[in-house]
Amino acid sequence: MKFSVNQTAFINQINNVLRAISSKTTIPILTGIKIVVAKDGITLTGSNADITIQSTMTTAESSNELVVEEPGAIVLPARFFSEIIKKLPEKTVTVAVHEGFQTKITSGSAEFIINGQDAIHYPHLPEIESDVTIKMDADLLRDVIDQTRIAVSKQESRPILTGIHILLANGELTAIATDSHRLAQRKVKVDTGDASYDVVIPGDSMTELARLISDEKDPVDLQIAENQVRFKFGNTLFYSRLLEGNYPETSRLIPDTADTTIEVEASKFLSTIDRASLLSHQGHNNVVKLTIDPDQGVAKISGDSAEVGNVEENVMADSVKGAELEISFNPDYMSDALKSFGQSTILISFTSALRPFTLVPTENKEDFIQLITPVRTF
Amino acid sequence: MKFSVNQTAFINQINNVLRAISSKTTIPILTGIKIVVAKDGITLTGSNADITIQSTMTTAESSNELVVEEPGAIVLPARFFSEIIKKLPEKTVTVAVHEGFQTKITSGSAEFIINGQDAIHYPHLPEIESDVTIKMDADLLRDVIDQTRIAVSKQESRPILTGIHILLANGELTAIATDSHRLAQRKVKVDTGDASYDVVIPGDSMTELARLISDEKDPVDLQIAENQVRFKFGNTLFYSRLLEGNYPETSRLIPDTADTTIEVEASKFLSTIDRASLLSHQGHNNVVKLTIDPDQGVAKISGDSAEVGNVEENVMADSVKGAELEISFNPDYMSDALKSFGQSTILISFTSALRPFTLVPTENKEDFIQLITPVRTF
Repeated sequence: MKFSVNQTAFINQINNVLRAISSKTTIPILTGIKIVVAKDGITLTGSNADITIQSTMTTAESSNELVVEEPGAIVLPARFFSEIIKKLPEKTVTVAVHEGFQTKITSGSAEFIINGQDAIHYPHLPEIESDVTIKMDADLLRDVIDQTRIAVSKQESRPILTGIHILLANGELTAIATDSHRLAQRKVKVDTGDASYDVVIPGDSMTELARLISDEKDPVDLQIAENQVRFKFGNTLFYSRLLEGNYPETSRLIPDTADTTIEVEASKFLSTIDRASLLSHQGHNNVVKLTIDPDQGVAKISGDSAEVGNVEENVMADSVKGAELEISFNPDYMSDALKSFGQSTILISFTSALRPFTLVPTENKEDFIQLITPVRTF
Repeated sequence: MKFSVNQTAFINQINNVLRAISSKTTIPILTGIKIVVAKDGITLTGSNADITIQSTMTTAESSNELVVEEPGAIVLPARFFSEIIKKLPEKTVTVAVHEGFQTKITSGSAEFIINGQDAIHYPHLPEIESDVTIKMDADLLRDVIDQTRIAVSKQESRPILTGIHILLANGELTAIATDSHRLAQRKVKVDTGDASYDVVIPGDSMTELARLISDEKDPVDLQIAENQVRFKFGNTLFYSRLLEGNYPETSRLIPDTADTTIEVEASKFLSTIDRASLLSHQGHNNVVKLTIDPDQGVAKISGDSAEVGNVEENVMADSVKGAELEISFNPDYMSDALKSFGQSTILISFTSALRPFTLVPTENKEDFIQLITPVRTF
């Protein structure tokens, strides 16, 4: 096995697959990066058993400056190998299996020989047997992930809630996440054809995917098999396992009436919440109170903690309607939810001090909803 | 106590004094920031017992937009207070002692009330009784610190070596640091007048000082008392305690002959050393080998580790002279030393494989020296 390649292009592809590689894996060979060299290109693979990322560099792509002298395969220690490649002195890097599984890396007058492992021992990629490919705009997919992943549970006590529930049918993708204290739901139009899927993808996988596609201009191809999902974009394949089990029915959690409402710019309300949480983070229970007085047209955020002090601020609301209300909640949940709306104006709808309340964009009340359960303080 | 002030100017001064404040202090009131309000200005003080930083904002300085309504003093929880000030919505901040030691902070519609402490309980500043003031260019002082602090010992077993030895006499400042494996010495011209000092300043204090003066254009005034040193620059006073005890005699450690020399650009050699240390950091003993063959005009860096592999690279030296030599050293010590020379060309002088070797700029061989003790590998 021997090839030479442009350093910058190689580093970009290595960085892609490194996202899947953890030094904490229980399968030692997965701390390595697999390099498979064929006549027309090289393929890099990284995996942590949950996620597998595969990146291909072809000789046809001139910016790769890829010259294959001898096909073959090797597994090299991922972090160490990537650090070496990043620090090499010249822009051309040559990698050659040298003796046994020892691999020689040369660039200018620098020469490293590092111990590799036989690629035969690297786990096989999951098989995706599916005729259906669903195309999604990369930016839209990233938004769907970023707007729902905040509500994914971090508790392993109910593993199914550590995933994002994805429903695909009738020209619509619905993504739902809940940790049972809050819920995020986003619907977008996609061309599903006749296909219909109901799967749960680990939240961590989706978070990594969102990072990977952050600069992606082309659409992302999605294929779903029995226990795996595969996303394809550019020269990269991203595999994730699916979570087993049934996701709870969540539609009945979302209230369809409201007794009190506020309209407010999400970013302005976010600043107010972030200030109040400075105080709530110092105290024992991380709670702030919202007092709504529609007669006065005033909504006020307040918090107090015997040890450190108290805070009070009027919300710059565009409208305050309905019944008087005092409601308390975790400001971090509110902050996460508000960030997901960017610069939009939102409608917040309450029924009572102990019932969940919802946030939706005023421009699109059907397709995007954040729900937060209040905290009982009395 | 009541004043209002421009938020940005206030944050800048708070950030200055925060550098001295540690949440790990054993003296609870030192987790606070002391604010003293007088008719013509406010003074902020932060301290960790070793270092005290005092910053003054005057009403005369228009960019402070400082209006004093009522003089007084208070101690407020430093991190919490600074976070609040940074997040306030409007550019004008009002701070007022409210009731007891409760302090009200207002800006726009946001209002915080936080619990303060009586400023009477805050430790008094050290007294500096000295008629002698030494002026130093801030950039030069920062260079002296940055070039020597790398060799300061981190081991508390010999406390005196955790400081930088400062000698001031005869128009010269000499700064020396050693952790007994390496040594850094820098001499600069300063106007000492008739004064003569021999003190040891904690390395951590000097590191903080170097950061604080990084943007300073005006000279720094230096005053030394029995167990304290005070640096004055802009509106800031920086106090540090001195270390007690005698600093070891170091001049005899520096060899005055050389059997083998290399001239090399510091930055180029640094790249080579950084690459080789990728490998040495993986192994059990962090050592690289330099092999010098003056007949071939070649100097070569190499390292090997049974577990991970080996590395080899020719040094891009401008000249290689004297006797053949193989010498091993800690590449991190070499890397630290090389960084202190910036883009300069340096002369490295060796006597033998087990004797310390020196690095000096070829442009100024007298005033700046880094010394490294090799590692015995046989």
